[in-house]
Amino acid sequence: MKKTALDTFDNKGYKPGSIAKRSLWYVIKILFFNTLIPFSSGLKRNILRIFGAKIGKAVVIKPNVHIKYPWMLSIGDHSWIGEGVWIDNLGEVNICANCCISQGAMLLCGNHNFSVSSFDLIVRNITLEEGVWLGAKSIVTAGVTCHTHSVLSVGSVASKDLEAFSIYRGNPAEKIKSRTLK
Amino acid sequence: MKKTALDTFDNKGYKPGSIAKRSLWYVIKILFFNTLIPFSSGLKRNILRIFGAKIGKAVVIKPNVHIKYPWMLSIGDHSWIGEGVWIDNLGEVNICANCCISQGAMLLCGNHNFSVSSFDLIVRNITLEEGVWLGAKSIVTAGVTCHTHSVLSVGSVASKDLEAFSIYRGNPAEKIKSRTLK
Amino acid sequence: MKKTALDTFDNKGYKPGSIAKRSLWYVIKILFFNTLIPFSSGLKRNILRIFGAKIGKAVVIKPNVHIKYPWMLSIGDHSWIGEGVWIDNLGEVNICANCCISQGAMLLCGNHNFSVSSFDLIVRNITLEEGVWLGAKSIVTAGVTCHTHSVLSVGSVASKDLEAFSIYRGNPAEKIKSRTLK
Repeated sequence: MKKTALDTFDNKGYKPGSIAKRSLWYVIKILFFNTLIPFSSGLKRNILRIFGAKIGKAVVIKPNVHIKYPWMLSIGDHSWIGEGVWIDNLGEVNICANCCISQGAMLLCGNHNFSVSSFDLIVRNITLEEGVWLGAKSIVTAGVTCHTHSVLSVGSVASKDLEAFSIYRGNPAEKIKSRTLK
Repeated sequence: MKKTALDTFDNKGYKPGSIAKRSLWYVIKILFFNTLIPFSSGLKRNILRIFGAKIGKAVVIKPNVHIKYPWMLSIGDHSWIGEGVWIDNLGEVNICANCCISQGAMLLCGNHNFSVSSFDLIVRNITLEEGVWLGAKSIVTAGVTCHTHSVLSVGSVASKDLEAFSIYRGNPAEKIKSRTLK
Repeated sequence: MKKTALDTFDNKGYKPGSIAKRSLWYVIKILFFNTLIPFSSGLKRNILRIFGAKIGKAVVIKPNVHIKYPWMLSIGDHSWIGEGVWIDNLGEVNICANCCISQGAMLLCGNHNFSVSSFDLIVRNITLEEGVWLGAKSIVTAGVTCHTHSVLSVGSVASKDLEAFSIYRGNPAEKIKSRTLK
């Protein structure tokens, strides 16, 4: 049987932006984002835009939010990013309007090919369509689309697409019922 | 089908305390609670009492504990609050005596009505009766009562009441066996 | 029915190292490990070795890693410790070569005897054999051995040993398929 050999891991093909841009963002992120100091959402929206993010109006960004690369992030109007959310966007993360990402949730674009010794990096985009709610400490994994108005309940793990207007729970998250808006 | 419209969200009816009190607590919490600097439990108990919490004797409070509003918190004698615990008490959290809340656990009093466009805030109290143990990185959701000596195992999510002297596991947490004390 | 009485808890028999050593490590850990400041893995490897850890070559240690006691830790060549990993090694944690511990994962050596009033501390070692992958925010509990090339998927909780070349998911983690390396 072959074995994992992490010394053969090679992610040179993955180019997420210049070192200068990434380094500058890293400093800014520590100062303004990964902190409990409650800088205003308006300031944080503007910083993200300067770094290339597409950020809609009235987006709320709570303290201690972890964003890997703003230039691969878009957030639509009125969406909320809760305290302690971790957007690990090695790939594109597209959050549409009126989404709520509750405290401690994670969006995880990275994966590895565990069938090869070199454990190759796999990057897949994540999309949250309009009106999605990710519950506290829930996790969305690489390549998943949460279709419009789907709900991922507290602490659940979405490893495949969520159907529209549907509520999911568990690890792996399974559909438990439909969502109807009155 | 109607849609979520977070611009119509209105939590003006939710009044968790004056802005002055909340702001002062926010500063104190950053300095003394949300930090790895190991201030003594005695100091932290006294600070919490000044802010209106009911804190029993010999309560242990580890570093990096996250408490939303101390004036809606009570903790009974000899209970332990582990490192990295997040008490998101938008509502009352009542922790009775001899409870152990292990590292990284979360108590979550907030919820949203996902059946209305305005995504109304729902706040429900949480009660841990005497002798309850919440395992590391477990989560108790809004409105749940953990009856006396119940146990929520590591990483599990309690979304309904836990029976007394019973052990729960999973997401959602299910009873797996009884707890007997010798 | 007897009750939990945490005032009778007694861990005097647990001797994880001198107070001087633990205090010095605590300061060093806050400065160099539990921080987003990206000190090099080389510096962190050397610090861990000074405190008694056995650390192989080319081990990668990302920012904000939480290590309880380095003198009870060994990490083999080329293994990776991801951002925000929490190694709560009250007991020995042995991580062999070519392991990947992804961001936010937890290794938890402590437990309690919940069948006695004094809630006695139970400490058990954790072993990750060669080529193991712990997914993001997964948890390995006290006493577990993850056999060679096992995989614990994102957000899952391993409460018993994982078989070699096998993939586990859920809470509690169940085997879902085999892992083959090409």
